[in-house]
Amino acid sequence: MTLVYWLDLFGVAVFALSGALMAGRYQLDPFGVIVLAAVTAVGGGTIRDIILGAPVFWLNDVNYLYIIVTTALLTILIIRQPSRIPRRFLLIADAFGLALFAVLGTQKALSFGTPMSIAMVMGILTGCAGGMIRDVLCNVIPMILRQEIYATAALVGGALFCGLLVVGLNQQLATVIAIVGALSLRLAAIYWQLSLPAFEIVDDSERLK
Amino acid sequence: MTLVYWLDLFGVAVFALSGALMAGRYQLDPFGVIVLAAVTAVGGGTIRDIILGAPVFWLNDVNYLYIIVTTALLTILIIRQPSRIPRRFLLIADAFGLALFAVLGTQKALSFGTPMSIAMVMGILTGCAGGMIRDVLCNVIPMILRQEIYATAALVGGALFCGLLVVGLNQQLATVIAIVGALSLRLAAIYWQLSLPAFEIVDDSERLK
Amino acid sequence: MTLVYWLDLFGVAVFALSGALMAGRYQLDPFGVIVLAAVTAVGGGTIRDIILGAPVFWLNDVNYLYIIVTTALLTILIIRQPSRIPRRFLLIADAFGLALFAVLGTQKALSFGTPMSIAMVMGILTGCAGGMIRDVLCNVIPMILRQEIYATAALVGGALFCGLLVVGLNQQLATVIAIVGALSLRLAAIYWQLSLPAFEIVDDSERLK
Repeated sequence: MTLVYWLDLFGVAVFALSGALMAGRYQLDPFGVIVLAAVTAVGGGTIRDIILGAPVFWLNDVNYLYIIVTTALLTILIIRQPSRIPRRFLLIADAFGLALFAVLGTQKALSFGTPMSIAMVMGILTGCAGGMIRDVLCNVIPMILRQEIYATAALVGGALFCGLLVVGLNQQLATVIAIVGALSLRLAAIYWQLSLPAFEIVDDSERLK
Repeated sequence: MTLVYWLDLFGVAVFALSGALMAGRYQLDPFGVIVLAAVTAVGGGTIRDIILGAPVFWLNDVNYLYIIVTTALLTILIIRQPSRIPRRFLLIADAFGLALFAVLGTQKALSFGTPMSIAMVMGILTGCAGGMIRDVLCNVIPMILRQEIYATAALVGGALFCGLLVVGLNQQLATVIAIVGALSLRLAAIYWQLSLPAFEIVDDSERLK
Repeated sequence: MTLVYWLDLFGVAVFALSGALMAGRYQLDPFGVIVLAAVTAVGGGTIRDIILGAPVFWLNDVNYLYIIVTTALLTILIIRQPSRIPRRFLLIADAFGLALFAVLGTQKALSFGTPMSIAMVMGILTGCAGGMIRDVLCNVIPMILRQEIYATAALVGGALFCGLLVVGLNQQLATVIAIVGALSLRLAAIYWQLSLPAFEIVDDSERLK
């Protein structure tokens, strides 16, 4: 389906951006940036396809690779002083990727005949796994574990999509509405949580015990 | 086989408990807890099935999902003050999951025709990978690397199972004996090691170099 | 092909050595050392095979397991005081594994019919993933993200191999030249970077923000 394909490419681009921005915070060399962008962008979908037993989506389509490399290089060129990137920018790119991939992952799992509840799990996995690998590689506790309404937003996206299909909505419309729903929830959560930064500090003291 | 199926569900429940308890130490929101419980509970078996080329066990069976969600929610409801959970409780739940999955993983690999030595490796993988992912996500060096007789206990479980089969024992009995053997060894190691907490400190100083 | 098989076994041995050396820095028990050696040695190739949809290479061949166990045990026996191992030794073993696996991974992907650009990505993955998992398990930011010309060296290996094939060179000769090229670049980078240790410190201060 064409809409899904373009949304998928867009999701890869925003997650690649989020990976490249994270890489920028650690002042990596260009290839390290591309690697982190790639892992973030296709990590979730790759795990989804492997678990579904589907052929891995980027093995047959060079476009994904080109988009990742282009995004990473543009990020490096445009943003000269990576340490000055506001953290919020990274969070927003991440939110877009999360919402897109959660809904598209749910959709792909359904097309492979999994039950709806499992399809939603696959959506969460598709949306969250890439960002989790990115955070783990940077030695940071993943956002999914640190920030409220992260996995929740992915689940809401998948559940909305399933619900709208059950109600009989057109699949393309259901896709768009579900993505907007998940994204709105996540963005709302980001603004809400900015006033609750105490969590992270508690984490660190816990860890030192 | 029925016995194996119930043991598998029980293993999923105790590993989900161990994931939820670990999540509790980091004061996560409910969905973060479920995600960590799920990753811990099915991570090892998922990797085992993917490497064996078997269909991933939880894709066709909603029971696993329900057990994970129920366990995680019950853990949240019952345990109000997560920071007061004794660390030993987490270790014991983890030991149960380790012993169960090590033996069941060995058994599944054998049923796919792998040589016994490789089947034992698959058992170690099944038993250890879920907990390893859990620890990595929480930015903690995995137990398998910090604690003596962890991978060893998994290996003993798999080796006992293989040995009892070779001797001609009934498969069900071999399963139970091997699980009890691995669990006993791991629990003994937990008590023994509690008097050797120096290891962790050495780790941290190493890391800061 | 025989040459590729022996190179592959050699790559497994040097990556197992690098995993065992890293384990030594954390003073693990023997089985923890074997586990870390195994994960480092076959992690990249396993992910490559799973993504390619190929049967995982070590499931049918006990030699890999034996080499890993032997290497890990020899490392433990020979090196009595692990904390005194020069860091450079670990870096050099890692460089050998990286160069070997990057080229062999590219070659295997090509034999499965992937386009050359994707095959190079698979080479980077094969070369880097095992070491990345090793570093993540030890709670260290992976070398690939900390050190310049790491992923780059893997890419150069894959690109050299593809280029030499395109030019019409014999496959065995192309393999050897590409491995030597990647290894030379990585070793040169190791010596060059030893005079730039400031990077790591910047990392840590970034992380504490």
